[in-house]
Amino acid sequence: LRILVLGSAAGGGLPQWNCACANCSSARAGRLKPRSQSSIAASADGERWLLVNATPDVRSQIEANPQLHPRSRVRGSPIADVILTSADIDCVAGLLTLREMRSFRVHAARPVLDALARNPILRMSVTPQRALALDEPFEAAGLVVTPFAVPGKPPLWLEGEAAPDPADAIGLELRKGGRRVVYVPGCAAVTESLSSRVEGASALFFDGAFWRDDEMLALGLGERTGRAMGHVSLSGPDGALARLGGLKVGRKLLIHVNNSNPALDPTSAEAGLVRRAGFEIPEDGQEIAP
Amino acid sequence: LRILVLGSAAGGGLPQWNCACANCSSARAGRLKPRSQSSIAASADGERWLLVNATPDVRSQIEANPQLHPRSRVRGSPIADVILTSADIDCVAGLLTLREMRSFRVHAARPVLDALARNPILRMSVTPQRALALDEPFEAAGLVVTPFAVPGKPPLWLEGEAAPDPADAIGLELRKGGRRVVYVPGCAAVTESLSSRVEGASALFFDGAFWRDDEMLALGLGERTGRAMGHVSLSGPDGALARLGGLKVGRKLLIHVNNSNPALDPTSAEAGLVRRAGFEIPEDGQEIAP
Repeated sequence: LRILVLGSAAGGGLPQWNCACANCSSARAGRLKPRSQSSIAASADGERWLLVNATPDVRSQIEANPQLHPRSRVRGSPIADVILTSADIDCVAGLLTLREMRSFRVHAARPVLDALARNPILRMSVTPQRALALDEPFEAAGLVVTPFAVPGKPPLWLEGEAAPDPADAIGLELRKGGRRVVYVPGCAAVTESLSSRVEGASALFFDGAFWRDDEMLALGLGERTGRAMGHVSLSGPDGALARLGGLKVGRKLLIHVNNSNPALDPTSAEAGLVRRAGFEIPEDGQEIAP
Repeated sequence: LRILVLGSAAGGGLPQWNCACANCSSARAGRLKPRSQSSIAASADGERWLLVNATPDVRSQIEANPQLHPRSRVRGSPIADVILTSADIDCVAGLLTLREMRSFRVHAARPVLDALARNPILRMSVTPQRALALDEPFEAAGLVVTPFAVPGKPPLWLEGEAAPDPADAIGLELRKGGRRVVYVPGCAAVTESLSSRVEGASALFFDGAFWRDDEMLALGLGERTGRAMGHVSLSGPDGALARLGGLKVGRKLLIHVNNSNPALDPTSAEAGLVRRAGFEIPEDGQEIAP
């Protein structure tokens, strides 16, 4: 079971095109490593790969990782399956890049597939497709994948288009033999059921978007709280560090870390607290074999 | 009048995510410079910039070019205007990246704006907008811009959605003082009216997608001819080199060059013919001051 971190940042990436906050400025100055938008690839054999989400950065993410380069002389790709965990722009926009003689299937929950299939610019990008059902395991790239609902919300661009659905935001459990990885790139609250699922996993990748809930407002970068955007904070008594830090998990990793998050600077106090809670923030291109 | 080449490749870029043709393989091996998807930025003063088309690569194109970095401490961008020359995915998908506290206006022809405004995932990306009218000059980033129709077609994703319109594909004339640049990233035929417009320009950037019309079929990379995709070939008696090579133009540059085009390899016979016809193929990041 190999997990390749394609991107570890939240929407916008680090740096973000129009952001000059401390972290984005440090990234442009070479003091912080740049990070692309949150995505992993997973494989049982290193030959066929599962791509989890298709971010706007997918073209550069594929080029930066030879594991995902085409091997034939004409058109082809080791990407055998794509799973979308939500219809967020940051999870689906890359489908517009993955065009022309594709060989993969797109797996997503019914509300996500339907929203994409209704959309003229995206509809060609979700063929062939397969609707996944919550808590029903299926096979993808040699792995057994179990999707499960997490607290979340439909993306902004679909608000008012359809009724909220438990499958608007999902996490994935990826299994091979006795190894089990839990991947949760967006999550609005750490519930008891989530904690039980995570307990004993070989690795956990969890939503590290914001350090605190009013982070975007405090920095003048946005007008909504983390929770309003579907993300639990890292800090605080109900935060991810407190609620997940005590669980017995082989490796705990934060992904989908927003450029506003002070923990991205390894010299910050917040980064120290992340480490003390047993979490690491992987770099783009890092491969984990849990 | 400064022109910054953000990308010089056609849709897919060089290398393309799923392509292992000779050029894409050479790019991965470091023998050819990589190229992102076709786009330029233009400016009268180096402070405010006009972005022509928003490609799927726009995030890395902005990061690769400090001219386009934000200058304030929070959110901002020197990009003051965006013009879309068609509704092709390669021209508009980057709008999904240029989100959050934007400061630019989107200029495009009415059929393009309408198609985007009808589309749920894109509609928020075209506000504020301004419909441009063919042959009517307007001001953008300190330049006088005149859009004009070129032979073309609506994009694949809109086929059957609306009647073909002369403004489905446009070229741009950018003027400052006595300097005049003609930018035509996609063009199905070189007409007399196009040649007259190009004659005497300070610089021409022209569609160099394909060397020959059946290139994609011959290489096993696709099933359509260049012309069916809206692109005149470089070679042949009606090709761009023959029809434009004799015109008096300060600098002639090819952009929107497809990864299948043998002229991308500077050691090829075709590259020699391009140079002999007076054309150059600029590199990503090259700045031209015509």
